[in-house]
Amino acid sequence: MNAPTPAAHLAPVVTARPVPQAFLDALKARFGANCSTALVVREQHGRDESAFAPVPPPSAVIFAECTQDVADAVKLASDYKVPVIPFGVGSSLEGHLLAVQGGISIDLTRMNKVLAINAEDLTVTVQPGVTRKQLNEEIKSTGLFFPIDPGADATIGGMSATRASGTNAVRYGTMRENVLALEVVTASGEIIRTGTRARKSSAGYDLTRLFVGSEGTLGVMTEVTVKLYPLPEAISAAICSFPSIEAAVQTVIQVIQLGVPIARVELIDHNTVRMVNAYAKLGLREEPMLLMEFHGSPAGVKEQAETVQELASDHGGNAFEWATTPEERTRLWTARHNAYFAALQSRPGCRAISTDTCVPISKLADCLLDSVTETEASGLPYFLVGHVGDGNFHFGYLIDPEIPSEREVAEDLNYKLVSRALRLGGTCTGEHGIGLHKIDFLVTEAGVGAVNMMRTLKQALDPHNIMNPGKIFH
Amino acid sequence: MNAPTPAAHLAPVVTARPVPQAFLDALKARFGANCSTALVVREQHGRDESAFAPVPPPSAVIFAECTQDVADAVKLASDYKVPVIPFGVGSSLEGHLLAVQGGISIDLTRMNKVLAINAEDLTVTVQPGVTRKQLNEEIKSTGLFFPIDPGADATIGGMSATRASGTNAVRYGTMRENVLALEVVTASGEIIRTGTRARKSSAGYDLTRLFVGSEGTLGVMTEVTVKLYPLPEAISAAICSFPSIEAAVQTVIQVIQLGVPIARVELIDHNTVRMVNAYAKLGLREEPMLLMEFHGSPAGVKEQAETVQELASDHGGNAFEWATTPEERTRLWTARHNAYFAALQSRPGCRAISTDTCVPISKLADCLLDSVTETEASGLPYFLVGHVGDGNFHFGYLIDPEIPSEREVAEDLNYKLVSRALRLGGTCTGEHGIGLHKIDFLVTEAGVGAVNMMRTLKQALDPHNIMNPGKIFH
Repeated sequence: MNAPTPAAHLAPVVTARPVPQAFLDALKARFGANCSTALVVREQHGRDESAFAPVPPPSAVIFAECTQDVADAVKLASDYKVPVIPFGVGSSLEGHLLAVQGGISIDLTRMNKVLAINAEDLTVTVQPGVTRKQLNEEIKSTGLFFPIDPGADATIGGMSATRASGTNAVRYGTMRENVLALEVVTASGEIIRTGTRARKSSAGYDLTRLFVGSEGTLGVMTEVTVKLYPLPEAISAAICSFPSIEAAVQTVIQVIQLGVPIARVELIDHNTVRMVNAYAKLGLREEPMLLMEFHGSPAGVKEQAETVQELASDHGGNAFEWATTPEERTRLWTARHNAYFAALQSRPGCRAISTDTCVPISKLADCLLDSVTETEASGLPYFLVGHVGDGNFHFGYLIDPEIPSEREVAEDLNYKLVSRALRLGGTCTGEHGIGLHKIDFLVTEAGVGAVNMMRTLKQALDPHNIMNPGKIFH
Repeated sequence: MNAPTPAAHLAPVVTARPVPQAFLDALKARFGANCSTALVVREQHGRDESAFAPVPPPSAVIFAECTQDVADAVKLASDYKVPVIPFGVGSSLEGHLLAVQGGISIDLTRMNKVLAINAEDLTVTVQPGVTRKQLNEEIKSTGLFFPIDPGADATIGGMSATRASGTNAVRYGTMRENVLALEVVTASGEIIRTGTRARKSSAGYDLTRLFVGSEGTLGVMTEVTVKLYPLPEAISAAICSFPSIEAAVQTVIQVIQLGVPIARVELIDHNTVRMVNAYAKLGLREEPMLLMEFHGSPAGVKEQAETVQELASDHGGNAFEWATTPEERTRLWTARHNAYFAALQSRPGCRAISTDTCVPISKLADCLLDSVTETEASGLPYFLVGHVGDGNFHFGYLIDPEIPSEREVAEDLNYKLVSRALRLGGTCTGEHGIGLHKIDFLVTEAGVGAVNMMRTLKQALDPHNIMNPGKIFH
């Protein structure tokens, strides 16, 4: 394996390219008050939720209000060969928004209109700054919903850019499966469309899926058409405690292998349950726990639930607690939703370094258990949650940012975890993306040939390397 | 709209490039008896199931037995800048296999091994020459199945190359959603891998989906990893007749909008039922008909079936006939499986020109009904079948190949149909691909900007334009 050294991940390499004053003047002339060079605004747009040390912020922030704004900004950036970083709500976890090569940020949050709800076709077209919660609020009256839920109230543009997924992906897929069509501003400032509203197509190269997951490195998405789903007639949620992580994971493996159409199945380890109890006084059993949700007809949901309960019992699962009303479900899911904040609060002043490996489900127990042992041995506090139905899970290593050795321990644990996941046929990132943090892992995972092909595509579509440069590859 | 004239589709343009004798000698030296220049072999590899007039066949056929064979053949072709056309079973419908720029064919049917069944993970890795029926036969003992069924017993490589789908796609998706990972020989003869066996990933550009649907124009797939599904505990099939196509289609729209997880829902128009009756003495009511299949638990299947029966009754659906045993199901599906042959037999000596539009489901009735009226008015015999749950349907215009004016009428009908589908937000091809036949339609559908981006990608990955040149774009 062409493995990187853990040290490669410790700090982003900053190689800022020149941002000519004439370019900034041209932006000011075109965008007026929608072009900000105020330090506080630039700083806010030069960071994300990753634990990277700060780097100098972008030189300007453009608040785009329409596709033409984006096209004009990118065209100017292209003329002056200045980097462009698209910005949603800043919830990225992998350093995607850091201006490591300088340049400007294009804030898309004002492009937040739902453009066309096609309820009959189960599709909706939105501007990229619409957040997933806003979208669900605006389509509420249609009886449909948009299931992809990465936790954060991210924008649809940002979720498309990182190929996001989250808790519902085991049933409804990821952004890969749910984006039907895009409008994109290319690196030269041209506006193109990819895909149609038809549910399938064999019409040429799949440009839609080339942009989904491209992390802003190939263009800026200015419209996104996604699939919607009928709100289930019945929803039922349950939590169940297990004597061990292995017992919980084996239950999940059987659920998936039997084809039970479970909508959500999340793992929380005993350690994280303890943190959540301390944070929210939930009084949960401090054992590994699965949180599950079932969608369907009342009879279908009942049947799924019975099947799963039986499988769980076979593996020592107990203390099943059920919830069918929205209020009860919210209470059960509190544990999952609070895990991140509960963990941060368990060690005041800490930052979380989040891992994102995903493995074939038969390897999930192996991968998880060895990594838990390793993490326990390190002495570093951590939390562990997982979208285990997909084989995806996140350790959060809780480091004191003032103690460099802790960061090194965390990066070393992550390195070992990723190496293990790749050996088991998995990926270094199930849903967060490569960003700055996993550039070397990508080479190990995909191989030099595939990464060179990605570079070739990047070079062909963005010859001046202005679109979010320094992300995905050096 | 940048619409092509119907005349553009009548005959492929042949612009054969030189195939140096030194190249053929080098192939012979490397491949011996696995390199054939026999006319009959070459002719067999220079055509497909499309209705195009024959063009001169490839200059040689390589029977590849392993990935290295493919890599060596492509490397030689790259050195001599000779076109390469990958070949499966030849069931393509859009002229993909015609050697319009000369070159060689690489026959992949000897690469027909199932390499790794990972039943626990619901994945299987196969060589590209494995056919879908062979695959299902070889995995039978696992309790899993591969659902994608384009009708023909196509190879998994060919199905990946055209982004195929078929009757089960409404429930299980298309090749786009079901290919997890690939091994590919690039245009320079390099071997790369894309994707992993993990069910989701955000690791860099989605090279897998760039190759899926690329119609052999970017490289040759030498291994394909696809998703499998648990065989449903219960399967139930039904046919139901309707007073009109519109009534049938409105039923389907409601089924989809309610989220009923129907596994198959196929439309056959009254005209085609008549042909099938004549061919197979089925005695079916000569009215528009839906063929449906439900997968799930016994109770779930029953519930789905009841819901659909109720919706169908609301639209005048009657003469429901149910089948739950494999034998009964086979009998019901005979009508669908025989439609193509029954249609060909209804006019001895005819050829079928098949259309492949796909529209958002709310536009399905509009698109279908106007096109039926138009086709009836033309006087040309036709059949009509559709994967209507996806908004995809096929007219087959039954032309006498000896009467050029009939071909012109058929192309004119197709032109009007595609134009209508594009106006309604659809695509010119749901599952057959662009090939030679829809090159101009692709420009109308995707726009000059998007097609230019596809060309840029092609140029970047295949600078000598040796991979199946002349397909997707001129």
